[in-house]
Amino acid sequence: MPESQENYDIVIIGAGPVGLLLAVCLARWGYKIKHVDNRDVPTVTGRADGIQPRSLHLLRNMGLKRQIMAYEPAKVYEVAFWDPQSGGKGIHRTGNWVACPKYIDARYPFTTLLHQGLIERVFIDDLRKNGADVQRPWTITGFKNDGKDKTYPLEVDLKHMKKDERETVRAKYLFSGEGARSFIREQLGVKIHHKDPISHVWGVMDGVVRTDFPDVKMKCTIHSDHGSIMIIPRENDLVRLYIQIASSTDKDFNPRKQATPEEVQALAKKILQPYYIEWDRVEWYSVYPIGQGIAENYTLDHRIFMGGDCCHTHSPKAGQGMNTAFHDALNLAWKIHHVEAGFANRSILETYETERKLIAEDLLNFDAKYASLFSQRMPSVGEVGAAVENKEGSEVNEFVEVFKSSQEFTSGYGIAYGPNQFNWSSDHSAKSHLFNPKGNTLRPGRVMPSATVTRVADANEVHLEQEIPLNGSFRIFLFAGVPSMTQRAVMDFGANLKKKWSFYSTFEREDIASVSYHERHNPHSRFFSICTTFAAPRSQIDIAAALPPILARYGDHVYADDVWDPMVPDAKAAAHAKMGLDPKKGGVVVVRPDGHMGCVVSLVEGSGTVDALNDYFGAFVAKAIRKPGTQALL
Amino acid sequence: MPESQENYDIVIIGAGPVGLLLAVCLARWGYKIKHVDNRDVPTVTGRADGIQPRSLHLLRNMGLKRQIMAYEPAKVYEVAFWDPQSGGKGIHRTGNWVACPKYIDARYPFTTLLHQGLIERVFIDDLRKNGADVQRPWTITGFKNDGKDKTYPLEVDLKHMKKDERETVRAKYLFSGEGARSFIREQLGVKIHHKDPISHVWGVMDGVVRTDFPDVKMKCTIHSDHGSIMIIPRENDLVRLYIQIASSTDKDFNPRKQATPEEVQALAKKILQPYYIEWDRVEWYSVYPIGQGIAENYTLDHRIFMGGDCCHTHSPKAGQGMNTAFHDALNLAWKIHHVEAGFANRSILETYETERKLIAEDLLNFDAKYASLFSQRMPSVGEVGAAVENKEGSEVNEFVEVFKSSQEFTSGYGIAYGPNQFNWSSDHSAKSHLFNPKGNTLRPGRVMPSATVTRVADANEVHLEQEIPLNGSFRIFLFAGVPSMTQRAVMDFGANLKKKWSFYSTFEREDIASVSYHERHNPHSRFFSICTTFAAPRSQIDIAAALPPILARYGDHVYADDVWDPMVPDAKAAAHAKMGLDPKKGGVVVVRPDGHMGCVVSLVEGSGTVDALNDYFGAFVAKAIRKPGTQALL
Repeated sequence: MPESQENYDIVIIGAGPVGLLLAVCLARWGYKIKHVDNRDVPTVTGRADGIQPRSLHLLRNMGLKRQIMAYEPAKVYEVAFWDPQSGGKGIHRTGNWVACPKYIDARYPFTTLLHQGLIERVFIDDLRKNGADVQRPWTITGFKNDGKDKTYPLEVDLKHMKKDERETVRAKYLFSGEGARSFIREQLGVKIHHKDPISHVWGVMDGVVRTDFPDVKMKCTIHSDHGSIMIIPRENDLVRLYIQIASSTDKDFNPRKQATPEEVQALAKKILQPYYIEWDRVEWYSVYPIGQGIAENYTLDHRIFMGGDCCHTHSPKAGQGMNTAFHDALNLAWKIHHVEAGFANRSILETYETERKLIAEDLLNFDAKYASLFSQRMPSVGEVGAAVENKEGSEVNEFVEVFKSSQEFTSGYGIAYGPNQFNWSSDHSAKSHLFNPKGNTLRPGRVMPSATVTRVADANEVHLEQEIPLNGSFRIFLFAGVPSMTQRAVMDFGANLKKKWSFYSTFEREDIASVSYHERHNPHSRFFSICTTFAAPRSQIDIAAALPPILARYGDHVYADDVWDPMVPDAKAAAHAKMGLDPKKGGVVVVRPDGHMGCVVSLVEGSGTVDALNDYFGAFVAKAIRKPGTQALL
Repeated sequence: MPESQENYDIVIIGAGPVGLLLAVCLARWGYKIKHVDNRDVPTVTGRADGIQPRSLHLLRNMGLKRQIMAYEPAKVYEVAFWDPQSGGKGIHRTGNWVACPKYIDARYPFTTLLHQGLIERVFIDDLRKNGADVQRPWTITGFKNDGKDKTYPLEVDLKHMKKDERETVRAKYLFSGEGARSFIREQLGVKIHHKDPISHVWGVMDGVVRTDFPDVKMKCTIHSDHGSIMIIPRENDLVRLYIQIASSTDKDFNPRKQATPEEVQALAKKILQPYYIEWDRVEWYSVYPIGQGIAENYTLDHRIFMGGDCCHTHSPKAGQGMNTAFHDALNLAWKIHHVEAGFANRSILETYETERKLIAEDLLNFDAKYASLFSQRMPSVGEVGAAVENKEGSEVNEFVEVFKSSQEFTSGYGIAYGPNQFNWSSDHSAKSHLFNPKGNTLRPGRVMPSATVTRVADANEVHLEQEIPLNGSFRIFLFAGVPSMTQRAVMDFGANLKKKWSFYSTFEREDIASVSYHERHNPHSRFFSICTTFAAPRSQIDIAAALPPILARYGDHVYADDVWDPMVPDAKAAAHAKMGLDPKKGGVVVVRPDGHMGCVVSLVEGSGTVDALNDYFGAFVAKAIRKPGTQALL
């Protein structure tokens, strides 16, 4: 072992979506990263392309949405269904429905379609701004958790793909974002479980076409007497076609079945009759077998982690692969950060697998259901109409219900993490009766609802859920209700935060004396950011008078809940209403660094609200936040 | 004269907002540009910073809004008014009102504040993408319209500011965007008229401050016993302060009066009492006298043009300078393009001065009014409340009315060009009774109202007014009404466009045989683009069946008027309603390349609609669009 061996916080293998998003987060939060990828350059053609609504929400929170949109991606607002007509007259449209219905209340109710390589470039640009980069073409040849260095327990061997260059480094963490064929997973002996025994061979073709098929710029599911196609519109006049070439349910199934581009084009021409289709050019074509699989573990030692396609594979039809990868990475990123920053117990790393594997299982279940819908049963026009318009009294059947719940899941807004130390439930160690106030409908583990409010300082109408950027901090949303009715409770909230043993004081920044006057999000601590929203018109809110100085310090994070919202058309304070909070009383919503809700607590006079938060955070933080001598909650 | 003298379509002097926007347009449309600026680099600090709502609309139409917003500019949604309290207790807020009220119906109802240098960079990046650039530091030393070359009648002498390098070039056009001190204007002997005899000395300071003044992130007009200040928030925690240091109405007025930064800061501290203000740093400070002036002419020969500050100077208080410059440039750009592309008669260049000088006069009148409001009379809280909320029955007084009409003007949406060959009126040479259909409220010369519609091809909800980018083409908006009621009229419209002597056929592209299948905006002609909007739900519109092939060719420009609009809450077809068109009948709105409306024509069965358009365009185009032998309209 040479003495010059370099130490890193993390070594990341693979610069696809999961590796890149992890690297971007950790680089922004100040960690030292070794990131390698075995390709010479980012993805040139093909691979994933669908950014779901919740993922776009996340990218905006990272300040990257604008860069994505600069590539002018296609946007899918509706899905069209085409089926065979009787008498061999070719296909006809039997219905269409919205991609992300209004009840989901997504800010961006569409799927964004853009070539994976362009998405990678956005991340790589951001990495470089933060002093990191991807080392190419390099790969991993070995690794061990030998613990020879307490701080950097891992040793990782890397080598150049083409030259005889090698490096051995030490690291706190190792992450595999290698994709379905993972050296790390194999070395660890982690098995892949196959949920659905059915597997398929898919052909996928990206190209520029000429056609009189009217829905070529929509997402389409097309069934014909000659086979089935899925159409996905893309940036720059590109169109992606997915064609199922073989299925393990076929009598003569061959998982190595091949098809030439010409064969697939000939098949597409038959399927699309009576419409014509011609290719100007084909940008990418691939045939590959897809089976459903899920890794038994995402980590064995909470030092070496895996995520993305390495842990779950499934059909590409619902455009979930890259999105699931993003959220794997996000989930792990902030947990590593909270351990390494000294905020949280190392045991929180266990929740990476428990939270994300459950989602992967949900995804595979959904995928199996979706695949079966795709190949077996198409909705009638009547059913589709009901799904789109959600008419009262229209017949609701199982298919529509399945589709509806699937839509929430595929949008990303249906993701719900189960109860644990972060996601409060009655089993949580924090037991205050103030948790989960009566009438509140928020479910910890889900993404906080969106809410449009007016920022008091500059009268800008803003999206409350975006006001704190992805800074790795817990987000404490104080819904402060009607000022005249909650004044005492708000002042008490501030006074109890200031107490020496509160979570607030415990995690005060060590450099607090030198924090910039202009620091907006973390003036007191990197552990949390605070937003206060009053149920009052902006012009009636006087920050200096309405808030104790400790909260008034977050002067750019004080809002008026005075914007009408179509989701709660009768509410006077729409944001309070969407959080299920009574504006006469207010409440506190704690949101994890990844945007998922942790807990909801009543706002009361006295110390109860802060006591409850102290207990909530006490369940996982690395420092005691109770006065020594008092009993710690377990 | 050396034989190697190079020829340009245009020589542009000065790379401030007016010169850059002109260059960007002409470079995009394929013209050869010589662009020089006497500074070494773009604006480093100071100067203009306010982008008004209509200008942001324009920048989006140019595809540049995203780049502007990437700099995270400040956004002003409200203006706050502060006045002295009695008894020397310092200032207090007496009211605030919205910067761009709802009745203006702006897509971006705020002023965007960003340092001029950053705005210049956005333009320069775009120039470079189109093969043009700014040559620095160079200036003009002489020019003449000697006509020695018929195509390039101008000779322009240029020299390096620091080295002994000179160039003499020939050009079709010369443009002065030199600012208030213009060599070209001086050489031409064009006089500046002073509208308002009052002039002022202003101090302006950009800096980062610390203050407990609560509205420091708002636009504020502050009057105190110690003087007056205007506050403008900016990107990156910057704040701009305008302080009036002297006025020609002062007894001892000295237009050369100076004040040090320290003096201005001391004054600001006094004015802001009881609040404190301290400077972290001062980025820019300047004191300059401002007088109102307007150039007698914008051109003498319709070859050498001037625009921007070269033609009009006024106070900076309403943030109009750069915006007026943008629209000077835009107005001239498309007219030069239409002459040089062979679309329009050279005489249209006369309308640059007539249209833009009128706006400058409006601006100076407004400026004088605004300055007098600023220095003399402040609104009471009651008046301000009425302006903000526009309550029925509240007292309306002259001040509020003046403010309200000013707001429309300053937003840029109040700009109205007078009747001429482009802006139809009953004096226009085209006389069809189909112009200006009964009940229509659109006024030619104003910007087309915004309208949200659904694009049929991909179900995307879009802003109709943005669907055709700034491509130099006339925009023909066919509002096709309810398909079942207008089918015959729509088919007749297509059939008459196809006739040999229509404006449509007359301006068919010469390269039409080789136009790309994927061309969206100009498949037939660079003279126009066409959008069709049906008063029907998207799912009921079948482009191939509802439109003749000539219109169906604009397949990405067919829309469903099926989106609810709060401005016309009871309308079933909101876009038709906003255009003042009956959805049972439809109509055609012709919009100039700059977004201002040209004419509105009824949609009727038979040839009347196209005949009217032929006559409208016949008033200014360079080719006869009537069958030879029939009488031309004059």
